Amino acid sequence: MEPNEATRTEHDAAANRRPSEEERRQKILVAADEHFRLYGYGKTTMADLARSIGVSAGYIYIFFKSKQALGEAISGQCLEKIADEVEGIANSSESAAERIRRVYGELVRQGKKLFFEERKLHDIVHVAVTEKWPVIPHYESRLRSIIRKLVTDGRESGEFERKTPPDETCRAIMQTLLPFIHPVLLEENLDEIELNAASVAGLVLRSLSY
Amino acid sequence: MEPNEATRTEHDAAANRRPSEEERRQKILVAADEHFRLYGYGKTTMADLARSIGVSAGYIYIFFKSKQALGEAISGQCLEKIADEVEGIANSSESAAERIRRVYGELVRQGKKLFFEERKLHDIVHVAVTEKWPVIPHYESRLRSIIRKLVTDGRESGEFERKTPPDETCRAIMQTLLPFIHPVLLEENLDEIELNAASVAGLVLRSLSY
Repeated sequence: MEPNEATRTEHDAAANRRPSEEERRQKILVAADEHFRLYGYGKTTMADLARSIGVSAGYIYIFFKSKQALGEAISGQCLEKIADEVEGIANSSESAAERIRRVYGELVRQGKKLFFEERKLHDIVHVAVTEKWPVIPHYESRLRSIIRKLVTDGRESGEFERKTPPDETCRAIMQTLLPFIHPVLLEENLDEIELNAASVAGLVLRSLSY
Repeated sequence: MEPNEATRTEHDAAANRRPSEEERRQKILVAADEHFRLYGYGKTTMADLARSIGVSAGYIYIFFKSKQALGEAISGQCLEKIADEVEGIANSSESAAERIRRVYGELVRQGKKLFFEERKLHDIVHVAVTEKWPVIPHYESRLRSIIRKLVTDGRESGEFERKTPPDETCRAIMQTLLPFIHPVLLEENLDEIELNAASVAGLVLRSLSY
């Protein structure tokens, strides 16, 4: 058997086999994501969604036990992506101070992008915050780890003071991020948000220096 | 004429004269305040309110052109009182650092009191924020002046660094107050709000020191 032939056979097998449960779940998720982005989360019922995807509502319920479960999966994906970007900055080779400064800038950039370019997705995140979905503490916990890493790095490299208990420092920094990550505050704060974030980053860095 | 008699006559005159426009306005305001505290602002109509006070809706409209005008007056009074308390702290004779620390504590105390003891009033303030009533920028502007005074005092007394432009410092400090003064964040943040506020006050004071 020629190698090409083997590849073709495997390919055919993949094309013919039944999609796995995870693949079918993903398909619904992608379709729901598109639908919510167009029509919004609040006003869409599971029946609307099923009709628009071309499946039965019962079929969706096999994979997602409620509309909220879909909303959680979608807002969770969105927040994971933002946390990934911020983590990328935290893992870069710059000074801890510079990385902290960039974290504020990136959170503002991501928040504005969500608000202006994907408003319906921003609205789902808003619902997630209001209804205390578990995706929110999960996201905050990722940000907390990132802040912790940056504070630790800066202490180890000798950039930052070491007298204040690190828990206290990290707790305070997390609070200073809220005006830029909370969907309600972000929205109310848009006018001068870059300037506000830069001034807070500056204040935080002065508090960390000797 | 005996002095007592003169007093009595003045008193009688006061009792008999028509209440001034301001007095009549105040009476409506007090009654509306009581009514909203019991039944909430959102669901009350001007007709409900008029019935409960025992006047016509038309009579209320002479003094307040809409339900919102009443809501603004009531939330404005509430925020003025909070700002007065904070101003009292800012004008005390302690060090600027100690006064800043107390401002965070007082804002948390007032915010919790409003939320737990006067929930319906808290809700009106929430509406004021959501609907961008002018009482909110007015309140923020009072807080900004207080922060400005404290930063200036601390710079003049030699407690605080003087390198950072004061506008930048004050802008950043105002942002760090948001988690404790914004009704939505306060409500979401209640669990560890004292600890959070104390840690932020500590961070701000470290940023202000040399």
